[in-house]
Amino acid sequence: MRKIKQVSIIGVGLIGGSIAKALKSKARAPRIVGYFRNKQKCRRAVKNKIVDKGFYSIEECVHNSDIVILCLPVTTIIKMLPRIKKCCSPRTIITDVGSTKSSIVSMANKLKLNFVGAHPLAGSEKSGAAFSTQALFSNSLVILTPTPKTKKESIRIIIALWKKAGARLRICSPTHHDAALAFTSHLPHIAAFSLVNALPISHRGYTASGFKDTTRIASSDPHLWSDILFNNKRAVLRATKSFLKETKKISGYIRSNKKSELLKQLKRSQRKRNNIH
Amino acid sequence: MRKIKQVSIIGVGLIGGSIAKALKSKARAPRIVGYFRNKQKCRRAVKNKIVDKGFYSIEECVHNSDIVILCLPVTTIIKMLPRIKKCCSPRTIITDVGSTKSSIVSMANKLKLNFVGAHPLAGSEKSGAAFSTQALFSNSLVILTPTPKTKKESIRIIIALWKKAGARLRICSPTHHDAALAFTSHLPHIAAFSLVNALPISHRGYTASGFKDTTRIASSDPHLWSDILFNNKRAVLRATKSFLKETKKISGYIRSNKKSELLKQLKRSQRKRNNIH
Repeated sequence: MRKIKQVSIIGVGLIGGSIAKALKSKARAPRIVGYFRNKQKCRRAVKNKIVDKGFYSIEECVHNSDIVILCLPVTTIIKMLPRIKKCCSPRTIITDVGSTKSSIVSMANKLKLNFVGAHPLAGSEKSGAAFSTQALFSNSLVILTPTPKTKKESIRIIIALWKKAGARLRICSPTHHDAALAFTSHLPHIAAFSLVNALPISHRGYTASGFKDTTRIASSDPHLWSDILFNNKRAVLRATKSFLKETKKISGYIRSNKKSELLKQLKRSQRKRNNIH
Repeated sequence: MRKIKQVSIIGVGLIGGSIAKALKSKARAPRIVGYFRNKQKCRRAVKNKIVDKGFYSIEECVHNSDIVILCLPVTTIIKMLPRIKKCCSPRTIITDVGSTKSSIVSMANKLKLNFVGAHPLAGSEKSGAAFSTQALFSNSLVILTPTPKTKKESIRIIIALWKKAGARLRICSPTHHDAALAFTSHLPHIAAFSLVNALPISHRGYTASGFKDTTRIASSDPHLWSDILFNNKRAVLRATKSFLKETKKISGYIRSNKKSELLKQLKRSQRKRNNIH
């Protein structure tokens, strides 16, 4: 496997900053360079040694890099791919951390990029490099979504990169990723947003850990999440439909005093949840 | 305020056990006696010094106690009240920890008990005395739901008891409690149960912290929760209706590509959630 000397991070926020920190904390770390739009953030990232060098030009930032990681919202990644194509050699491996995969991977394939789709299931409701940590991916799951067109060597290199950052890996198709994440991530966000929106202000003082844990992710960045939900529209609508059906089943049992049916429903949920660690 | 010499705990599980531990950890602790149906659990609780003495008879357990705390599921509390009335003197203050209040308080009033309704917003998806801790109520919220019939001195004594256990207090009517908790506790449980039930088994390997936090409470005791949901039927159905409306609003915006409307909805949720600590 060829040696990785330089990695470009496009978008040094919570995820990009954490990748930089994780890689730099290990032996034989590659040189990490970052692309910034904001001069103050660039200076701060260099001063705090998150990146070895910062650039305000994408062309300069990706020049001579073996790997370019796009750490941006989904739609911004899609828009940026043609520009990245222009300034990267075919040897440069392009990868990303976008929360949905089909639309990104399909654009990358159309442009015939040397691309490996990736999605680290890490992060938090917080955003920005100030919250980045070297341990963010430690033992967390990263999903790679190669297609038959993806180069085998590129997959191996991206696997090695994430293992270096401490992550566990899982490989599936972009479509399977989007269908699964609609249920395991996008739908829980919709539920959290709606639980908070449904709460009358006068009842705000009666919340405890149950409400707080269930709705923690409602604090997530609205722009980022609106972008994710639209980019995975079909799968998200399918998951939401199934969730509404389950919720109505429970309220129907309560309304019509169907005690044994409700109990069965709650037992099923408890058993399933106890098997998720 | 009169001196509290003995407290009876009817049902020494997670909550009852934690009350006993919290009170016994403080100076001038009252004698704590517990009612058990299971001999092994009784012996273990006495051996582990959770209670000073255990009884298999409710009559013997409440005899000579200044306060009797019913730490049982809502329906069991309601069923037990007439029996408690028979063996308590009018001086004995009866209180509870039931998760819904209207049905319990209305039965207590009907029986003309010296009763103070209470609900500690503490606990976890775990149950049983083995999980009880002396710090469970430390800085957590306890809601008292007196009515015009409740004796002022009894309220003062129950406030002092919970303060001794480390809790913060809030007082409201049983109806207000049930309306608020439908939104802040019962509805989040329904959402968590339904998120887990909606998840196809094949996607189980794609969960991360978002899903896990949002659905932690789906592991709660199904019997206890079925009981709570039926005992607060009207308020729970009202809260669920409002939640379904909010969820459908979001899925409607996604379906019809209403980007600015969706963003507005998510921003509203983020702002509201950031104000809940």
